Amino acid sequence: MNVVRLITQKRDGGEVAPDDLTALVDAYTAGDVPDYQMAAFLMAAFVRGLGDAEAAALTRAMLHSGRVLDLSDVPGAKVDKHSTGGVGDKVSLVLAPLVAACGVPVPMISGRGLGHTGGTLDKLEAIPGFRTDLSIDEYRDVLGRVGTVMIGQTAEIAPADKKIYALRDVTGTVESIPLIAASILSKKLAEGIDALVLDVKCGRGAFMKDEAQARRLAETLVGVAEREGTPAVALLTRMDVPLGRAVGNGPETAEAVSILRDETPTGGACDDTVEVTVALAGEMLALGGAAPDAHAGREQARAALADGSALATFRALVEAQDGDASVLDHPARLMGEPVATVEADRAGTVADVDALALGYAAVALGAGRARKEDAVDPKAGFVLNKRPGEPVEAGEPLAFVYASDPDRADTDAVRAAFTVSDATPPRPAALVLDRYAGGAWDGRAGGADGSA
Amino acid sequence: MNVVRLITQKRDGGEVAPDDLTALVDAYTAGDVPDYQMAAFLMAAFVRGLGDAEAAALTRAMLHSGRVLDLSDVPGAKVDKHSTGGVGDKVSLVLAPLVAACGVPVPMISGRGLGHTGGTLDKLEAIPGFRTDLSIDEYRDVLGRVGTVMIGQTAEIAPADKKIYALRDVTGTVESIPLIAASILSKKLAEGIDALVLDVKCGRGAFMKDEAQARRLAETLVGVAEREGTPAVALLTRMDVPLGRAVGNGPETAEAVSILRDETPTGGACDDTVEVTVALAGEMLALGGAAPDAHAGREQARAALADGSALATFRALVEAQDGDASVLDHPARLMGEPVATVEADRAGTVADVDALALGYAAVALGAGRARKEDAVDPKAGFVLNKRPGEPVEAGEPLAFVYASDPDRADTDAVRAAFTVSDATPPRPAALVLDRYAGGAWDGRAGGADGSA
Repeated sequence: MNVVRLITQKRDGGEVAPDDLTALVDAYTAGDVPDYQMAAFLMAAFVRGLGDAEAAALTRAMLHSGRVLDLSDVPGAKVDKHSTGGVGDKVSLVLAPLVAACGVPVPMISGRGLGHTGGTLDKLEAIPGFRTDLSIDEYRDVLGRVGTVMIGQTAEIAPADKKIYALRDVTGTVESIPLIAASILSKKLAEGIDALVLDVKCGRGAFMKDEAQARRLAETLVGVAEREGTPAVALLTRMDVPLGRAVGNGPETAEAVSILRDETPTGGACDDTVEVTVALAGEMLALGGAAPDAHAGREQARAALADGSALATFRALVEAQDGDASVLDHPARLMGEPVATVEADRAGTVADVDALALGYAAVALGAGRARKEDAVDPKAGFVLNKRPGEPVEAGEPLAFVYASDPDRADTDAVRAAFTVSDATPPRPAALVLDRYAGGAWDGRAGGADGSA
Repeated sequence: MNVVRLITQKRDGGEVAPDDLTALVDAYTAGDVPDYQMAAFLMAAFVRGLGDAEAAALTRAMLHSGRVLDLSDVPGAKVDKHSTGGVGDKVSLVLAPLVAACGVPVPMISGRGLGHTGGTLDKLEAIPGFRTDLSIDEYRDVLGRVGTVMIGQTAEIAPADKKIYALRDVTGTVESIPLIAASILSKKLAEGIDALVLDVKCGRGAFMKDEAQARRLAETLVGVAEREGTPAVALLTRMDVPLGRAVGNGPETAEAVSILRDETPTGGACDDTVEVTVALAGEMLALGGAAPDAHAGREQARAALADGSALATFRALVEAQDGDASVLDHPARLMGEPVATVEADRAGTVADVDALALGYAAVALGAGRARKEDAVDPKAGFVLNKRPGEPVEAGEPLAFVYASDPDRADTDAVRAAFTVSDATPPRPAALVLDRYAGGAWDGRAGGADGSA
């Protein structure tokens, strides 16, 4: 492989051969291609784009840079979900045990929060004692016993992705759809799954602000996964306001537990989170062969939430991963007492809650990381007392602030995320905007969750 | 300066502010911005392009990364020439003393050969003892005494260019017109010159194969130089066949000396080299105020070649830079005896000599460098016994091969550069295709040298 020739080929808009991409990724991972050459290639790929065959080859090379798990000894089709990330997105904590309770094993390798969106690992670690650093043998064992397992990316999984992502982060080459797809899929396909459901979020609080871009990402993710032999379905979901009422690790985990307990969660109803979770569960159950179609899968999922079997599976998971399962009986312990209250400065109706603004406020409070090295405060976060469409009196709480360090609470920043107006807000639109499967969009807004 | 923001700005096709470009170049030169970020920026600049203001700001930042010489104590307007490089291009060796002999000081900082084109430094060093590594004080002194001086780039001149060029070389970002222009001009404008003439070559043996690209480079070079306060003129010259009959350092220096001696050079007439040299000299003399216009300048230059004053200046230069001036009386000593003869395998007329093929053959022979670290063989090269348009008999020499190591002579590669046919070749076209000055092209093919 001539690296400069390969760079110039992409630079000039040509298509790079799969073998050359494999050689590039292998040599970069081994340290034989320096960062500056990879940076030049990534920028060329960013600006010129990568075709589906190139994205698939890149994914494959990154996937095979490390260990690819074989879970064939665990019976049944294993299915996982990946979300592109949003504010208040605690779906994985409910979804994994829910789908497992319905009979489809869910092996899940998750990431930590970075930027304004949270990460599943940080949420799990809000449960005292919960270990996310299982060995591969423990991972396989917990999956077999519980039906689901949730761990962090190990050094053995897709090391090329780790190295390439770190380089993209500092070279302005993050927001490329094929590069994002290769990064996501190289990790997910290494888990040993048989099918994958993707929650591609779009809107103000999402990584993809623009719906057209989000659609392209969904198409690329599904297309590349299927090229690599893994059936996949993507749901396009709205992320303009926070999902649910809780934002931050402890508060979100508490909310997830409340949903699993089929209780009215912290501060009030949480229909949006349930809507998205059930929609994703329906797809996973259909792909895993436990339901004839996604519609039937959704019904099974609703039943498993209502009858406590999803909660029981989550309890088994927490115990298997050394977490303190007593918090499942007392979820409020995960967040402590509020350290501040954000009050409305006028009466009216909540017209809007800006997910992005609240995401940044959560990072400032200690719930997220400004840099990878930062530690997170598991207690830090917000619970919305008012969601869009709800009336509020002047002086009434809009949100409660939780934190280990009360001095970091910035109530003005939280209040600024709320818009209170006199107008009657429109009825909230469906969260599931569309569904991509088998090379086509359903084209019905909310169609995938039409039963909701 | 936020480097990632600056990279993404260029990546998305935006214009980077001059201050940001300066900060980037300064930080990169100081080692505060790593190679991988600069590589990503350069690739973004390559693909998205740089506007004239950006190219000028980049040039200025690179220029001021090192010492900018002040030659105001040397009387008269100092004028230099830069060529984008070609095969057999020994013009500088004739031009610098010629223009100096006509009264315009020529301070020249040159490069070494890389790739298929030669470098002036390597040609000068074919003269035993010739020192190209003068200190800045010596440089000033020789210029004042002789009227011209020819040295290599010192570490003090445009260190940013040195570092950026090395990075471009390994990241597929060489062939960008604004980056090329900034690299050339940052060095040339640091010499302390008052005006600059550019020989922008196009054709098979040139860096720019395409005439439209070469024109854009000429426009960018002149535009940026003039933005920086240095009047400039560009000649667009043809580089399809080697210039002159000699290719390689010793042979080319011998040929340059023959031209200065106003003798029929090695192997036969060398009108093309004289044509280009005189055209450039005319422009330099006009810019330097020694001639009322380029036409008059060309007449003066022809006279200075004929009356021996250019040779006398070259002799003074060689002596001032510790070279063995006796080779000026016996130029054949610079090349030794031929180690091989390339014979025509058929009779006919030489229809073509491929400059690029011959350039690569010269590198293989040891006349050039495959890598920067390689040493060159000063004796290695070719002398064409036949040029396009000349008749040849079967078995008659097409070219002679010179080399310290006869085993490296590959006569087949040299023969393959020649096309011998039965057709009567067309009359050779003018070498000077056009002239760019004052923001406009003359538009007359050969117009700049219409007197030839």
